[in-house]
Amino acid sequence: MSEGILVSEETAIHRLKEAQKILIISHRSPDGDTLGSGLALYYALISIGKEAELICSDAFPEKFNYLYGNRDFETPLAGVPDLIVAVDLAAKTLFGEKNKYYAEKTDLCIDHHVSNGQYAKETYLCHEASSTCEIMANLILHMGITLTKEISNCLYTGLITDTGCFMYSCTGSHTHEIAAILIDHGAEYVQINEKMFGIKSKSRLAVEREVYKNMEFYDDEKIAFVYISLDLLKTSGADETDIDGVASLARQIEGVEIAITLREQEDGKPFRVSVRTSENADATKVAKVFGGGGHLRAAGCSVEGNLKEAKVALVEAAKKAIASEGE
Amino acid sequence: MSEGILVSEETAIHRLKEAQKILIISHRSPDGDTLGSGLALYYALISIGKEAELICSDAFPEKFNYLYGNRDFETPLAGVPDLIVAVDLAAKTLFGEKNKYYAEKTDLCIDHHVSNGQYAKETYLCHEASSTCEIMANLILHMGITLTKEISNCLYTGLITDTGCFMYSCTGSHTHEIAAILIDHGAEYVQINEKMFGIKSKSRLAVEREVYKNMEFYDDEKIAFVYISLDLLKTSGADETDIDGVASLARQIEGVEIAITLREQEDGKPFRVSVRTSENADATKVAKVFGGGGHLRAAGCSVEGNLKEAKVALVEAAKKAIASEGE
Repeated sequence: MSEGILVSEETAIHRLKEAQKILIISHRSPDGDTLGSGLALYYALISIGKEAELICSDAFPEKFNYLYGNRDFETPLAGVPDLIVAVDLAAKTLFGEKNKYYAEKTDLCIDHHVSNGQYAKETYLCHEASSTCEIMANLILHMGITLTKEISNCLYTGLITDTGCFMYSCTGSHTHEIAAILIDHGAEYVQINEKMFGIKSKSRLAVEREVYKNMEFYDDEKIAFVYISLDLLKTSGADETDIDGVASLARQIEGVEIAITLREQEDGKPFRVSVRTSENADATKVAKVFGGGGHLRAAGCSVEGNLKEAKVALVEAAKKAIASEGE
Repeated sequence: MSEGILVSEETAIHRLKEAQKILIISHRSPDGDTLGSGLALYYALISIGKEAELICSDAFPEKFNYLYGNRDFETPLAGVPDLIVAVDLAAKTLFGEKNKYYAEKTDLCIDHHVSNGQYAKETYLCHEASSTCEIMANLILHMGITLTKEISNCLYTGLITDTGCFMYSCTGSHTHEIAAILIDHGAEYVQINEKMFGIKSKSRLAVEREVYKNMEFYDDEKIAFVYISLDLLKTSGADETDIDGVASLARQIEGVEIAITLREQEDGKPFRVSVRTSENADATKVAKVFGGGGHLRAAGCSVEGNLKEAKVALVEAAKKAIASEGE
């Protein structure tokens, strides 16, 4: 398949206006941005008399129930869609098992990921945007469609989940300008923030309790070490997001420069290790010692051996990474 | 002393432009908004050739070091000020011990608190604003002063500390509009957010560790009970903010409708109790049983007796509060 082309917002709007039956696709393991942008587009198209449907390879998470209304968006289109639109969907593999068929059939992709594979016939890519919802807000406004409370809630959700409530560096002044418009159009930001950031799941609580009990500190408390056993993972029901959060938690402690989280694997496979650092240390320096890699502040690797050996080796590598900073 | 009058932004600007030596006062126990607005005003006035000084009854907290530059603002004014301005300072008692003299001498107060006592000769009050920094941003812009990176950092700090990073209901579309302007003028929002929200103090960690270990649940896990001993308070060095955070933490757990935090007091005085509720329960219903009060989601009271008795009585009151919701 030949690579698709990049198109302007104007072209994207033209395609949407031309079409009557539009199938919208969100990425697998759906998050606030893919659902927020997909649902906003759904509600917007319906409001101007189009037929639309939103599909996702995985179930629509309960967490976002407040966006689903009476779930009309799940009603299958009658007949063949005349436009297939993927939202916040950067690569063919992210269509997921159920929807992989559409990876080769997508007419238009609307996305903000710099890594977008341009698998669609046409891609409207805006990688300076914090989120696909930021792009979608403009697009809906420029289509002349009224931002209802429903649409504003969807878009606000993607904005805050992709920016960590305006904290991450992907946030721009334009993100705030869009937030202002969404609030003026009824986005229920207090309730949405409470739902997204105010509630700690029971599984997350269980992991945190255990982690707090067993957290160890080394090198003048500049290194925090966290161990997550298979047993804890199973009894708590924690998922990847929970584990990610816990890795960051250790790094956030005053004075900690490197937080190492080590996860036990099935059948004695090598431990999975995540390294998170403050601005005073380079996470990749630790990960590279064990053949891993990643970014300056977040890296990962696998480590063999028993727990004690792995811990000694990791703490040693972390000490060296801290010591090398002054060089 | 007769009550002062409310004035417009125009008048406030006129007073500032007229004056040459300006003394700025922040409230005691200074937070991000009183310091952010006071320092922004200081830097703005200096930039147009005025003399200024910022004072505060309590020490300038280390936490906000990134706003202080080379601490020029602490250099005393040469001679008598011709304008005394209080920022974010709602009542005379909040001047603090060291500056209480100025409570009767304030020429202009710039504030957003609806409770402002109008103790100043003139008060520019804008209670729809999320923060005094939001008001100050407009004022500085309308004075025609360039927003430097320094000023933008100060104002951004007050914006996020008073709104919980745009989460609280005091946030308005205008708050986001100001944030957009500040980012465009160089506000280092990633670093500031990391400093304000990304780091957990050792004392807070110590309290959380203990609380996680001892947290109890009742009534189908709808009630969370947290006990904080004098001993824990002393060994951890936790302050009021830490305790407040922990009380909220318990409430944030999935399924918890009422979180009760009970604090041991010196010399066997009655326990201090804080009650936090989700949207499904009324905190005042619990507090009132013990002669306390407060708001729908956050209330407080004192409870006598030993720990076991106090716990039984509180959990009983919480159960009744939950049961009464359906009525």
